[in-house]
This record gives sequence, C-alpha cells and structure tokens, in this order.
Amino acid sequence: MVPPVDNLIRALAKLPGLGRRSAERAALALLRKPELLLDALTAALQEARATVCCCSVCGGFTSREQNPCALCADTSRDGAVLCVVEEPSDIFAIERSGGYRGRYHALMGKLSPARQTGPADLRLRALAERVGRGGVTEVLLALSTDMEGDATAGYIGELLRPLGVRVTRLAFGLPADSGVGYSDPLTLKRAISGRIACG
Amino acid sequence: MVPPVDNLIRALAKLPGLGRRSAERAALALLRKPELLLDALTAALQEARATVCCCSVCGGFTSREQNPCALCADTSRDGAVLCVVEEPSDIFAIERSGGYRGRYHALMGKLSPARQTGPADLRLRALAERVGRGGVTEVLLALSTDMEGDATAGYIGELLRPLGVRVTRLAFGLPADSGVGYSDPLTLKRAISGRIACG
Repeated sequence: MVPPVDNLIRALAKLPGLGRRSAERAALALLRKPELLLDALTAALQEARATVCCCSVCGGFTSREQNPCALCADTSRDGAVLCVVEEPSDIFAIERSGGYRGRYHALMGKLSPARQTGPADLRLRALAERVGRGGVTEVLLALSTDMEGDATAGYIGELLRPLGVRVTRLAFGLPADSGVGYSDPLTLKRAISGRIACG
Repeated sequence: MVPPVDNLIRALAKLPGLGRRSAERAALALLRKPELLLDALTAALQEARATVCCCSVCGGFTSREQNPCALCADTSRDGAVLCVVEEPSDIFAIERSGGYRGRYHALMGKLSPARQTGPADLRLRALAERVGRGGVTEVLLALSTDMEGDATAGYIGELLRPLGVRVTRLAFGLPADSGVGYSDPLTLKRAISGRIACG
C-alpha cells in the first residue's frame, strides 16, 4: 500500500464506527475522485476547525461568532431547569428527543479513575457557580448508566446539596452500560419525563 | 445544529459505510478533541491529495514520485498475464488474496448505460495498446459479477479478439451483484485459480 494512502486509512479508522476495512473503502473512495469527496471533506474539516468552539456557558458546540450558543441565548427556554450532560454531543441527542426545554451544562467527561479523570478535569466548578447564581430550581443529570456515570451523579448530588437545589436523574429507561449519545429519541423522551430524585 | 458541524456531518456521510448517525458520531468525535483526531485526518487528507496519483501504466494508486507504481516496476512479476480491474482499489484486494503474480490494468469503471459510462470513458484504448505491444499472452478479467461487469467483459473479449490473446475471467466463486473490493481474500484466491475462458 502507498504510505500516504495507508496514513489516510489509519486516520479514518480512528473514527468511531469505522473499522480497518471500512476505513480502507472510505479512503479509496476519497482518492478515486479527490476533487469531489476528498476536497469537500478537507474543506469541511478546516471550516469546522476554524469556526467551531465550545460555548462559554453550557460547553456545547457553537461557532466563534455565536458565543454563548443559540440554546443559551434563546430566552424562551426554561432557565429553572439545568440539564447536565457528559459530552457536548449529548446536547444534540437530547434536543432531538424533543422532551426538554430547559438549559444545558456539559461536563466534558465523567469521573473515571481508569482514565484518570478527576473532579478538577470536569466543568464542576462552573456548574456550582451557575447554580449558585440562583434561578435554577432543578438540576437534571443526563449521565451514562454505567458505574462512572453513577459515581459522577453521586458526586454532583453532594456538590449541589448545600445549594438547596433539586437534583434529578434521567429515568432508567436507558439501557445499562450505554451513553446518552447512543439512545434513540423516544427512549430519551421517556427517560426525561420519568426522571427520578437523586440521593 | 451549528452549520459548520452540519457541513462536516454531511461530508462524512458521503463516505461509503457511513450513514447519517455514524457520520454524526464521527463528526462530534473529531470536534471533541480537534488537536488529536481532526488535525491528523486533515493532514492525512492533504498529504494524500498532494502525493497520491494514478499510475500511468496500470492506473492503480501510487505516489507522484513513483510513477510507474511499485507493482509495474517490479521486474519479478509475470508480464505475460494482465489482470483487468474496474477500480484502482480492486488491485489492493487482489494483492491481498496472494493468488496473483502478474500485471494490472485498471479501467476506472465499467460500461454502464445508467451512469452514461461508455467505452471512451474507460481505459480501453490503453488496454488494447498494452496488449498490442506484445508479451501478454493472457488477459484476466477481474470484473463485477453483475450485468454491467458482464457487458464490460463481453466488450473486452471482442476488443482483444483480433490480437489473438487468451481472455479469461475470474471463476464465479464471487457472489452475484457484488464487486472485487467487497470479497474476502480466500474467495478471491479461489476465484483466481478457478478462472474460466471468456466467450
């Protein structure tokens, strides 16, 4: 295999959902008519790299020109409920469910001894500050239903207890050992309406 | 969804094997830590775009610095057998099978009335010229086992008949309505050793 082709296959194979064989097919399709697919993908990557950033309020993806993001700037949304997610991409999944009209806060991960992610690596202080400023009556935790998600939920419950806010969690309609980003809209919608008290 | 994120998802969804949902997951993974995945993929795409080209002899992928490609330059390979494939990527699939030691010729497609691909759009004149220069005793057609592949095989059989070369075709060990790029190495190896006379 020509080395640059091999490099491209390896870069593609690192994407979630692409194995070695499908990365190979994708690379060869890109190279077959580079002026169509390859140039468009390169341009889209460069544009995204140059313009996409994380919202300074919720941590979700937005453009550098719109910060805070459209969701944070939308005055019609309910500021009394704050939904805490692990990843910026989880916000898209919850929006797609159509079951939520409050605000968001992305932690940028979850507590994980295995990956050496501690409380200081997450946006937990920003969360406490947002809740501390008042106006929020409920914090809805939309976290993974695995041990690390449970530990993160427990930690946040303790962190926010002094602030007197109600902390809830998505109903366990989610399948075990999975994450928000993998759930279908209906499952997410049911889990939002059936959310339970935390701790 | 932020427009540059949406553009990136659409560019990724055009790759074979990636649907809308998996393209979305891939895009969000790229943006989550752009200095890791996104920059590496952009660099690999740019390198491949700048350095990869099609071999002037066989039409397979090679680098601009090595033209003719390594397979065409390899004097240990059998110049008496010429394997005709549709796509440059098919050459990789046949090489992986380990069942072939001859030369290659990529047509860059197959005859297809539906996609308005006629004989002039394929590297058929270059094929006739290569065979006409002598030294080739057998042309092995490694084409799709669908109607368009059959039509292309028939056309090449007629085209090369005046040149007195033996034209063979891969044994029908290949599943129907599929292509060389989708076959596993063993199936390809068996199909190469069981090849049959054409027309």
